[in-house]
Amino acid sequence: MYFDTAETLSREEIDNLQTVRLKSTVERAMRSPYYGEKLKGFNVDSITSVDDIRRLPLTTKQDLRDNYPYGLLTCSTDEIVRLHASSGTTGTPTVIFYTQNDLNTWANLMARSMHIAGVRAEHRFQNMAGYGLFTGGLGIHYGAERLGCLTIPSGAGNTKRQIKMIQDFDVDVLHIIPSYALYFAGALEAAGIDPATFTPSIALIGAEPHTEEVRRKIEEMLNLKAYNSYGLSEMNGPGVAFECVHQDGMHVWEDAFIVEILDPETLEPVKEGELGEVVMTTITREGMPIIRYRTKDLCRFIPGTCACGRAHRRLDRIAGRADDMMIIKGVNIYPMQIEQVLMGLPEVGENYQIVLEKEGFIDQIRVRVEIKEDFFEEDMRILKGLQKKIQTQLCNEILVTPRVDLVQSDSLPKSEGKAQRVVDQRSQED
Amino acid sequence: MYFDTAETLSREEIDNLQTVRLKSTVERAMRSPYYGEKLKGFNVDSITSVDDIRRLPLTTKQDLRDNYPYGLLTCSTDEIVRLHASSGTTGTPTVIFYTQNDLNTWANLMARSMHIAGVRAEHRFQNMAGYGLFTGGLGIHYGAERLGCLTIPSGAGNTKRQIKMIQDFDVDVLHIIPSYALYFAGALEAAGIDPATFTPSIALIGAEPHTEEVRRKIEEMLNLKAYNSYGLSEMNGPGVAFECVHQDGMHVWEDAFIVEILDPETLEPVKEGELGEVVMTTITREGMPIIRYRTKDLCRFIPGTCACGRAHRRLDRIAGRADDMMIIKGVNIYPMQIEQVLMGLPEVGENYQIVLEKEGFIDQIRVRVEIKEDFFEEDMRILKGLQKKIQTQLCNEILVTPRVDLVQSDSLPKSEGKAQRVVDQRSQED
Ligand SMILES: [Zn+2]
Ligand SMILES: [Zn+2]
Repeated sequence: MYFDTAETLSREEIDNLQTVRLKSTVERAMRSPYYGEKLKGFNVDSITSVDDIRRLPLTTKQDLRDNYPYGLLTCSTDEIVRLHASSGTTGTPTVIFYTQNDLNTWANLMARSMHIAGVRAEHRFQNMAGYGLFTGGLGIHYGAERLGCLTIPSGAGNTKRQIKMIQDFDVDVLHIIPSYALYFAGALEAAGIDPATFTPSIALIGAEPHTEEVRRKIEEMLNLKAYNSYGLSEMNGPGVAFECVHQDGMHVWEDAFIVEILDPETLEPVKEGELGEVVMTTITREGMPIIRYRTKDLCRFIPGTCACGRAHRRLDRIAGRADDMMIIKGVNIYPMQIEQVLMGLPEVGENYQIVLEKEGFIDQIRVRVEIKEDFFEEDMRILKGLQKKIQTQLCNEILVTPRVDLVQSDSLPKSEGKAQRVVDQRSQED
Repeated sequence: MYFDTAETLSREEIDNLQTVRLKSTVERAMRSPYYGEKLKGFNVDSITSVDDIRRLPLTTKQDLRDNYPYGLLTCSTDEIVRLHASSGTTGTPTVIFYTQNDLNTWANLMARSMHIAGVRAEHRFQNMAGYGLFTGGLGIHYGAERLGCLTIPSGAGNTKRQIKMIQDFDVDVLHIIPSYALYFAGALEAAGIDPATFTPSIALIGAEPHTEEVRRKIEEMLNLKAYNSYGLSEMNGPGVAFECVHQDGMHVWEDAFIVEILDPETLEPVKEGELGEVVMTTITREGMPIIRYRTKDLCRFIPGTCACGRAHRRLDRIAGRADDMMIIKGVNIYPMQIEQVLMGLPEVGENYQIVLEKEGFIDQIRVRVEIKEDFFEEDMRILKGLQKKIQTQLCNEILVTPRVDLVQSDSLPKSEGKAQRVVDQRSQED
């Protein structure tokens, strides 16, 4: 049932463990040049509850860059057995160092993560992710090995061989990134392989943010269950949060990480269940502990307890980047919120645009929405009704009443990505 | 001094250990469908010395293909935790299965191999080989980790980032394939980096057969010591034989492998120090033991004892493929032998050709040799003397007197690879 007794911890036990581990982490971190300076004079014994974490400073990616490569290291490099680094082809890379204990802890977290998604020792696991400096490949590889799976390190690409391996070895579990999974499903179809005869029953599809729709599509096309996950190299790599078989949010391993959801503007905690920036602290890492790391990822905790009974809180899907946040009438709004409302309406076409305007001194938000041809009526009263419906639903989500313009299909400029859909006209009107 | 006590075994102890392990290996192998059938009725207790290996059948790559994927497996796939496979884009691939013990044994052999070349726990090691199904990447990765190095899994390619990593982390040891090492040295030069300031002092450069000249070039251009090694996926991958700091042949880990050098035609052992086909038996492997595997690699044992004192015998550089063997007047001759003689002569140019002819019923060998312009004299007496010298030196090496034609530079057809330099005109003249 459980891979690790940590999965059975109650909320209270998690809180107590986090307090103890936060103290030892801060103590350890202070051995590094960066935190030694940053936390000079901080009294570790003043930490008496997890909430005391808010008295500690935040750490940004820029801090990691500024202190590259050894600034956050708490020990001699002789004790380090692995490093992973971001690509670094543009600008300074960031680097994470691991002791042997860190690798063991990471492998255990990863094995536990695969286990809650239903992966077992007797499964054959094909790791279709790139190995090397990227943490996804080796991270999941070591987890599968710890779990006892037969691991096929097939790596990225070479679709024909991937298919052959899956067929020849009756593979049960795939690790595959969502965008490649869609391509791969097409390649299977093109090869005339019926998904019903395709042996894998589980796909681990983290690494890239994706929608529920994409998940369902992957599940249908590959005839398996697809599980979402969350990880980032600053927090080891994969194995930070993983969906259990209920597929209802990703359990964060709170015995290894403290997660805060903060308002990216005020840096105060958001209300329970509200969207904000994910801020994480490692509490079991030796070589390079990181305190209150600003991930820039937007997410919310899913309230309530999971059907599986684990007390470890669940993150919702990543809803975008904190950098995309807009503040309108004092309210934080993310483009993703608007997209989610619009995509849930059958009348709405493929494109939309968010325009930020100024009316006197007051910021306003205008949403321009393409309506599908079938719904674009001549009758103004019907259009008016649709406009009102969209406005109400948006207001329910973003807590501000936007202006809504309905426009015909293909009339808005095409753009890629959420951020580019936002047009800020406020400074021009000053 | 030693990473593993197995390095201190005497010749007699190695022989005794090999006898014991050969017995257990045959016993274990007989659990597999393939060897169970092949060795039916074989009495394991009849093995009383290593020489009894000659009563066992040889195994070829075709046998592995014919019994793909599970024919040589001695246990349930539940006990298997890894597989590696040859590319298999053309025809049936071959596959090797590893239990957890097999992975541990492999990592230990690999760590020991790096250690005898001078690699130590405090070194920073950059693994510039492709990871994935290819055994070179993960094989050496696990060895470095076992040794306790700081391992940078940089993988293949991305030369700019490779250089940055080496500089940023003061890397001491590289794993790099010879052809890429030459390219990489050029890239360093182009980037204006002085090899004198380049930190790595050791390069592991196995994986591809290469000449002593290439090694010296790599050592000079990168300002380090380069160590040759031998491995093949059928025998785990890397970590089969490795050069010690004396760089005088590759010690085979004879506590893990039994090596025979056989005449590829008669399949009898060649005389001590003679060239023949390398035939190997795994004697510590659980999941998929392989008995008397015909590697098709041509090599010879280096006679005598290494200056390091280890009793484990040393393989010379791989001298080509057994398939290239020619039989002239009952003598086995390999194109590589002829090439080595010719390349040692300052008068000889870039190209040569080996022609096999028939004179009546007797096979003859003719070697056509391009002579550098500076040495191509008008004086026939001088040319005659050179011709005689080449003939004598070739005869000393191949034990047959060839006909030798001296020709001008650029007069022979250009060809790639040793095998293509051989023109067999015997059947045409029948
Ligand atoms: Zn759950
Ligand atoms: Zn030696």
